[in-house]
Amino acid sequence: VIEQKTWIIVRYGETDQMGYVHHSNYVLYLEEARFDLFTSHGLDVAALEQEGIILPVVSMEIRYVLPLHFGDQITVETRLKTDNKFKLELKYRILNQDQKLVAKANTALVFVESKSGKLIPGFHKYLDPLTLKEEMIS
Amino acid sequence: VIEQKTWIIVRYGETDQMGYVHHSNYVLYLEEARFDLFTSHGLDVAALEQEGIILPVVSMEIRYVLPLHFGDQITVETRLKTDNKFKLELKYRILNQDQKLVAKANTALVFVESKSGKLIPGFHKYLDPLTLKEEMIS
Amino acid sequence: VIEQKTWIIVRYGETDQMGYVHHSNYVLYLEEARFDLFTSHGLDVAALEQEGIILPVVSMEIRYVLPLHFGDQITVETRLKTDNKFKLELKYRILNQDQKLVAKANTALVFVESKSGKLIPGFHKYLDPLTLKEEMIS
Amino acid sequence: VIEQKTWIIVRYGETDQMGYVHHSNYVLYLEEARFDLFTSHGLDVAALEQEGIILPVVSMEIRYVLPLHFGDQITVETRLKTDNKFKLELKYRILNQDQKLVAKANTALVFVESKSGKLIPGFHKYLDPLTLKEEMIS
Repeated sequence: VIEQKTWIIVRYGETDQMGYVHHSNYVLYLEEARFDLFTSHGLDVAALEQEGIILPVVSMEIRYVLPLHFGDQITVETRLKTDNKFKLELKYRILNQDQKLVAKANTALVFVESKSGKLIPGFHKYLDPLTLKEEMIS
Repeated sequence: VIEQKTWIIVRYGETDQMGYVHHSNYVLYLEEARFDLFTSHGLDVAALEQEGIILPVVSMEIRYVLPLHFGDQITVETRLKTDNKFKLELKYRILNQDQKLVAKANTALVFVESKSGKLIPGFHKYLDPLTLKEEMIS
Repeated sequence: VIEQKTWIIVRYGETDQMGYVHHSNYVLYLEEARFDLFTSHGLDVAALEQEGIILPVVSMEIRYVLPLHFGDQITVETRLKTDNKFKLELKYRILNQDQKLVAKANTALVFVESKSGKLIPGFHKYLDPLTLKEEMIS
Repeated sequence: VIEQKTWIIVRYGETDQMGYVHHSNYVLYLEEARFDLFTSHGLDVAALEQEGIILPVVSMEIRYVLPLHFGDQITVETRLKTDNKFKLELKYRILNQDQKLVAKANTALVFVESKSGKLIPGFHKYLDPLTLKEEMIS
């Protein structure tokens, strides 16, 4: 299993007039956690973009369990599923500084040829170094 | 059925380096559409907040079908489901200027007493004027 | 003088826990107003980008006079100065629905060749159709 | 002199279709840096808000010198000026991972009684512990 833990501090500007973090900002936390996992496992999205390959998000689901406040120190636990040939699926758990579950989420991304807009089949080649590296560790 | 159509133009700052609208900004479009429906049907969220009642989002699901670009003129079709006693459930369809489906989404909100954090049961009282108004029209 | 008035409604997600619009979001209002002026006067930024010319912001100054609230209906009055050969300078006044001054701002943009990062001198050619059009009107 | 250095990594969602960080996001970097300085020097904005005192930004000026890219690791150097009785003035320099100057900025904030909207004169009482602490160190 490919996993990553990412530590993020809530910014003031991420709150709304309810006094909690606005629900749209969790999307940015998930993205930061996802890129942290990618970078830690050798998947360089910026380099792929230079080659004309992009990774758009095709679906996202978030369940908000507890509110977040300015200054909260959260941990995002991200897990990459590798059993789908066409989608890069990730699962997330966001915990606050008291180790309480704040939110759960799923996202799915695909590898797309930027010019044509076509899905890239068998994208696991981009994950191989990543998977191999992980297997060597575990 | 309580429905609303909301027209939004994509801002430049909502794009990302892929050249499309960043997926987090769809959350803001859904929110704008939802408040448009609320306002058009007599539900005044700001007034409720003054009374100590808030409406946090408890879940959200988005499926991204087609990319959006700077300057695109989108229509968000929002539909309010009223058969759940505890959750305010909304369904959305986002269409671009060519009437093509860009995204589908669901959100659920709850009415919460701000001080205590307790769910407010039987929240339909806040929807009554709205529902009644709608029934008079249809 | 090249001027434009742009009408914007404040989004809920643009507020922060003070209960006012977060000061970073004024930057998006200015941008929306600026693009509204551009579009109304024939300057197509997206088309220029296709040709490899970009318009980054090089400076920005905002004075916040009165707070803005969720749902406020603001008017941005934008004025383009054309007397600087190298910078596209704009002045803005943001008014609320009571016609009270909410904020004043200045921004400066430059035309840059995307690949080389070089400033494009004599950029007024891009403004000519715009200026001419304006002069024909006035 | 009261100073602070804050280290921030650029998020993917902070880029725009030019391929650089959108200029509005520098405002969030400045804010994160400012709160870092506040927290490190004993000024607890959240606690003040509980007492009904808020710190809105009243002016902001940013000069953009070099573009920022996704993944860049920036340092914000923040300096608090304490010679103005009514405004909390801060100066910022943003450097990239190559120690090149990316942007310079100034912001001014005021202490306001939330209910009345009145400026709080002689706000240095909030800064005293901070200033004293600093003087003991230097």
